Parts: sequence; C-alpha cells; structure tokens
Amino acid sequence: MTAAAGLAVGGAYAGLREPDAARAAPEPVAVPFYGFHQAGIATPAQDRLVFAAFDLTLDTAAELRELFRAWTRASAKMTVGLPVGSPAGDPQAPPVDTGEALGLPPSALTITFGLGPSLFVQGGRDRLGLRARRPRSLTPLGPLPGEQLDPDRSDGDLCVQACAGDPQVAFHAVRNLARIGRGAVVVRWMQLGFGRTSSTTSKQQTLRNLMGFKDGTNNLRGDREADMRRHVWVGGEEPQRWFRGGTYMVTRRIRMRIESWDRGVLEDQERVIGRRKVSGAPLTGTREHDPVDLRARNSDGSPVIPLDAHIRLAGPAENGGIRILRRGYSYTDGTDPQTGELDAGLFFVCFQRDPHRQFARLQRRLGVRDALNEYIQHTSSALFAIPPGIRRGSFLAEGLLA
Amino acid sequence: MTAAAGLAVGGAYAGLREPDAARAAPEPVAVPFYGFHQAGIATPAQDRLVFAAFDLTLDTAAELRELFRAWTRASAKMTVGLPVGSPAGDPQAPPVDTGEALGLPPSALTITFGLGPSLFVQGGRDRLGLRARRPRSLTPLGPLPGEQLDPDRSDGDLCVQACAGDPQVAFHAVRNLARIGRGAVVVRWMQLGFGRTSSTTSKQQTLRNLMGFKDGTNNLRGDREADMRRHVWVGGEEPQRWFRGGTYMVTRRIRMRIESWDRGVLEDQERVIGRRKVSGAPLTGTREHDPVDLRARNSDGSPVIPLDAHIRLAGPAENGGIRILRRGYSYTDGTDPQTGELDAGLFFVCFQRDPHRQFARLQRRLGVRDALNEYIQHTSSALFAIPPGIRRGSFLAEGLLA
Repeated sequence: MTAAAGLAVGGAYAGLREPDAARAAPEPVAVPFYGFHQAGIATPAQDRLVFAAFDLTLDTAAELRELFRAWTRASAKMTVGLPVGSPAGDPQAPPVDTGEALGLPPSALTITFGLGPSLFVQGGRDRLGLRARRPRSLTPLGPLPGEQLDPDRSDGDLCVQACAGDPQVAFHAVRNLARIGRGAVVVRWMQLGFGRTSSTTSKQQTLRNLMGFKDGTNNLRGDREADMRRHVWVGGEEPQRWFRGGTYMVTRRIRMRIESWDRGVLEDQERVIGRRKVSGAPLTGTREHDPVDLRARNSDGSPVIPLDAHIRLAGPAENGGIRILRRGYSYTDGTDPQTGELDAGLFFVCFQRDPHRQFARLQRRLGVRDALNEYIQHTSSALFAIPPGIRRGSFLAEGLLA
Repeated sequence: MTAAAGLAVGGAYAGLREPDAARAAPEPVAVPFYGFHQAGIATPAQDRLVFAAFDLTLDTAAELRELFRAWTRASAKMTVGLPVGSPAGDPQAPPVDTGEALGLPPSALTITFGLGPSLFVQGGRDRLGLRARRPRSLTPLGPLPGEQLDPDRSDGDLCVQACAGDPQVAFHAVRNLARIGRGAVVVRWMQLGFGRTSSTTSKQQTLRNLMGFKDGTNNLRGDREADMRRHVWVGGEEPQRWFRGGTYMVTRRIRMRIESWDRGVLEDQERVIGRRKVSGAPLTGTREHDPVDLRARNSDGSPVIPLDAHIRLAGPAENGGIRILRRGYSYTDGTDPQTGELDAGLFFVCFQRDPHRQFARLQRRLGVRDALNEYIQHTSSALFAIPPGIRRGSFLAEGLLA
C-alpha cells in the first residue's frame, strides 16, 4: 500500500483519508542492530509484532552467556535480511535457518531482548549467581488495580520483541531464536500484534486502536532525545553500571470488551476517552494536536474533559509529569470459548526509566478511576529490564555476564 | 517495503534476494466488490487474512435475506475504504462503524461469503426451507485420512473470508459484519493468517510457507480464465441455476510439527517435498519453474522424485488431472499449552468446482501416502458453497433467496 492509495478514494469521507505516511513510508530497509541503545524502542514503530517470553532451562551464567552470544550473532544477521546460517550447506544436516524469510527484505526488523526479574531471583533463590548485578528497579510490580491476570501468559525469565513491516519476517526471527535456544530456554508465551497503535516519532501519523480512537497522540517521541533521556533511558541513578543506557519494558495484554464498547453511544465513548472519535481532537479542541485543556468548563460548570476521562487520568499534567514511551499493538486471538465474544484488544508495551515510579504509578490511578475500565481488562503482565545496546564484537548483556 | 529494498542487501545470500514484486507491487487501491464472480478467489492473493465462520441464530429465510442485504451494503462500502455508515452521525447513538479503519486506504480488501452445508440441512432438518435449492455438491466431506479435527474450529453455517494488504482493514471488515449480524449470527470460529503462501496469478512471486519451502509454484492462476472455468467455477453441470458462476471453498487448518521438521536434515526435507529448499526447483531441475519429471530415475534405478514426495502425490499428473486453486495463509496461534510447542502452520484455503471430486479425492490419497504426514496434522475442516458474484443493486445469494 502506498501513500497515494490513501488519496485515491473520494466520496463522503474523503476528508478522513489523510495520505498515510505512517503505514507507507518511513520503513527503512534495515534498522541497525548494534548501537548505544537496543533497537525497537526509539525506532519508529513498525506495523507488526511477534513477542515471545521464555523460561530458562539452563542452570548457569556461563550457559546464559553462550545463549546470548548465539542470539546476538543470529540477530545481527536477521536484521539485515540474512538467514542465521546457510540454508543449504550440508545436505546431511538440518538447515541452520528455517528458511521462511529467504528472499524477503529486512522489513525494518528489530529484535529487542529483555531480562525478567525471575532471571535474577526465583523463589528467593539467586539461581544464576547474578543477584548482586540485578538492575535496581527490576522487582515485581505486584498486584495492580484493573487486572485479572492469566499467569500462563504473564512474566518470563527472558523476552524477545520482534517488530517488522512484514509479520513473516518477525515470526521467522522469534522462531529461529527459539530454535537456537533449544535446551537453554522454552517459550513461555507468545503474542502476535497485527497493527501498531502508537506513533513513536514526530513524523509518524497516529493510528487507531480497536476502540476506533486515535491512540498515542501525546506519546513520547523516540526522536526527541532530551525526552528519551529524561523518561526512558536509565542513567546515572542506576548503581549497576552495566545497565546504564538500558530501560524497562512493561507489557500488558489489555482485552477490550468490544461488543459492549460498540453498543455505547458516540458521545459517551468520547467522554470516556476525552477526545473526539473521528478527528482525534481533545474535547477542548477541534484538531488532533490541539492542547488538552483540563481546566475548561461547560456552561453548567462541569469540566469539558470529565474527571474520569482516560486522557485526563493518563496524561502527565495530573500525574506529576510522569511520561512513558508507549509502543503497543492491536491483537486478536479469535473468540473467547467461554463467551463467544471476540478476544481482541491492545497488547500494550511501554518503556520507561523506572517501572515502579512510572507505569505502576499510572496504573494504580487508572485502574481505579479511569472510565475506560468498564470496557477493558488487563489479562497479562510482564516486566523486563532491557539491557543497553550492543556494540559490534560484543554480545547481549555482556556487562552483566562478563 | 519496496521492491528496491529486496535488492539493497548484498553479501553471501544476495542471489536469494529477488526483487519482491509479490509483496510490494500489484496491490490495487480497491478491488471491485461487484462482479460475475465474488472477489477474493481469482484476485491476486493479498498478504493478510482474517477468516470467520458463523452459526445462525435466525430462523427464517426472510431474516437471512435481510442479513445478506445488510452485509452486501456494508461490504460494498468497506471494499472502497469507506466506513459502513457515518462514524459521527448522531452523538446520542452508537457509531455505525467501529472506526478502527478510518483513514486507512482500501488495501485491496476483498470480502468473500460462503454457505455451509448446515445452512441448508442441519440434523436432517430443512431448517430454512432452502433444501431444494442446495448446490448439488454441498454435502459434508466426511472423514478423511490425516485429520484430527477440533469440532469447535470446524464447519459453520456461513463464512466470511476477508483478505487485504493491511490486517487492520481485514479485521475491521469481519468485526463490522459480525456486529451487523448481531441477533442473526454468532461467530463460531475465527482464524488470522499473517502471510500468504500461494501465488494466484501469473505475475505473483512464489512465497514460502513455514516449512521454509516455496509453496504453490504450480498453483492454478486466477488470471488464466480457461483453467478457472475448467477447475474452479461451477458451470452448466449444476442443476441449481442460481449457483452457476459460484465455486466451493474448503478450509483446512494444517498444523505443522515445526520443531520436528526443523530437526530434519536438508536432503530429507527436500525428498519429502520433492523440491529444493532454496531455489524451489523440483529435484529434476535447477530452477523453480523447471518441469516436474516424475519418471526421472537415479543411477540406482530409484525415482528422483520419491514415490511418497508431496509434489508427486499432490500434482495433477498422477491424480487424473485434478487441480484446485490454493489460496492459503501461514498462521501462528502462539504455543500449544499441552506441549509448549509452537502452534503454527498453514491455514489452507482452496477453491474448486466440486470439493468431493477435487479436494477430497486428493486428500484421500495424500492423507495416506504423503511423506509430509509425519510433520503435519489437519486440525480443522470446513466446506462452503461460494455463491456467484453480486451485481450492483442486487445482494449476496439473491438467486437463492429470491
């Protein structure tokens, strides 16, 4: 699909049809894998996601180091569109690469690795002798309001976030990393995201989530480096020097009660969110990027943006300036066998400097007061420390495992 | 991603990296919804699929007619990129369109409707008084070898196949059709396909399935009309005049035992398929489209293409000329909770003039003899009669319901 395609259809809704640079354009051929930070965070959000959480079956830090070396080598290849090894070397051996991405371009593939709290401490046990090097905020978030978590879809010792323009390229990456990890890790849970919801650079157009609303208008932007340093990248506050330049990822599988949402009248939907549905404008404006005026009042004295509206409760103004980088994806996993309703929603992914002071603090407020709670439920949760980027010749989390 | 992207990476595997016209190019802005045949069959296969099977909750043919009128109206709009109704009409009413595709281009969306055997006869009962107008080959396929079917993911009174370049556009279509059908139908099962596997026109490049092999090299081509008339479109043999110009769709969710396949040595994988993995050439050739020579022998007298190779058993030469139009998609639904292995494979979709004489006859042979059976299992099955196309001013299956 091209930007031109967005312009080719007229008719009654032609005004809605902006040239869709977001979906068409800034998808570079290959996103650098090596760098000061891992890719897939500040990178302009690609359209598709394959996410996997793994549990360890290995027993030592030395084995973990070997796994990370192998994952690093493979990822450096896949992100430039190469197979992880010869797809047709020894005819008497299993092919090193599984092959389904042969011939496909890199599709802006990024592979982002994370370390769960249980990698360091499991059941109180310093399982790999790494406890003393644990990033200081990598401790379980604990129960939060608004959640009913499926433990089989939550947590994990490690994670891999593969984002790409082509889902086959993202799937190939996760599958081959899982295969390389055989004997060292097993897949704990997996999630596909079919469409990005958050803009993560100043140039990306805001797309819509499955509630039909533009999502992420006031998101942090990966290309605003001062904001990223302030809110996302771990800095000098971190006693673990090896972790500086890293960040923390929180994932939440947020199921939407779509059928019930779809029965709501437009005005109620807009009051729940605090924005107009079609334009994305705040209720205090007419265009998407107009300012959110939380103090504006109706003639009867009531606030224009209701006290329980999502944008009021989630935004930085009433949260002491807390901001996070959202990078989520819409998902559907078919129908819920118990109710016959669609199992669909938002696989929420966010990055921040301190998950306890950022995401958890926001959710403690949102989970209690947000008008959106009537229509959503958090069904899985995971926290990962995202090590800093890898420099050529090094490997994932070398500073931890050196 | 662009065709140029495929050329930008060199290195050891540069030869594999053909300009990927298949993924980049021929995706028209909008595929005509109205026509002599339904779209989504001969249409060049789009990259993404959302498929839903529905069960009826309505009781009369008159109600079915109303549903089909409403579905027709909505589909005609969505396939040109319009919402099904005003997204911001009456603020005191629920929005007519759910909104998540607002601003997205049509993305070559096609919506293809089908009628299951149980729409006509359920438990021996002529439930809607339509039995006398049932297409003659719309009778259950019966048990076939190689299957272990999940009944909750099989069959259905109706189906909707939504294909598009953008999965959010395809999902939006199915969701809004389900919503329009509230009170008349419920979703029975749903399947996402993330990547097309079959080329369906002479110009599309062959892509790879999750076994890493090019899939569909010798598929029928939707743009070869004589072949389509001979093998796909129902003609004068059909006593139900209203159904002429229709076709039959068979879907099979074919789970691949990926972990076990990935442990197989290259030569064995190639003997199972009968083709080379990297090039896609038959074992009797060097290039993908070289002829499949089933009589060629090795120096020891054994056939070059083994007797149980998939392309020998599935191809027309040893099947009395049987051909079908395949239009399948790779899928993954996460991990299998019982084994921890990936639940991934091929959501096989095919079209033909007579499912009993075409798909079922092939599968009776393949299910017993195909070397591939060690690595696959059919876990769902469904059969649908696909009514002929709709002309402007008419509606789906008008000939059946007039």
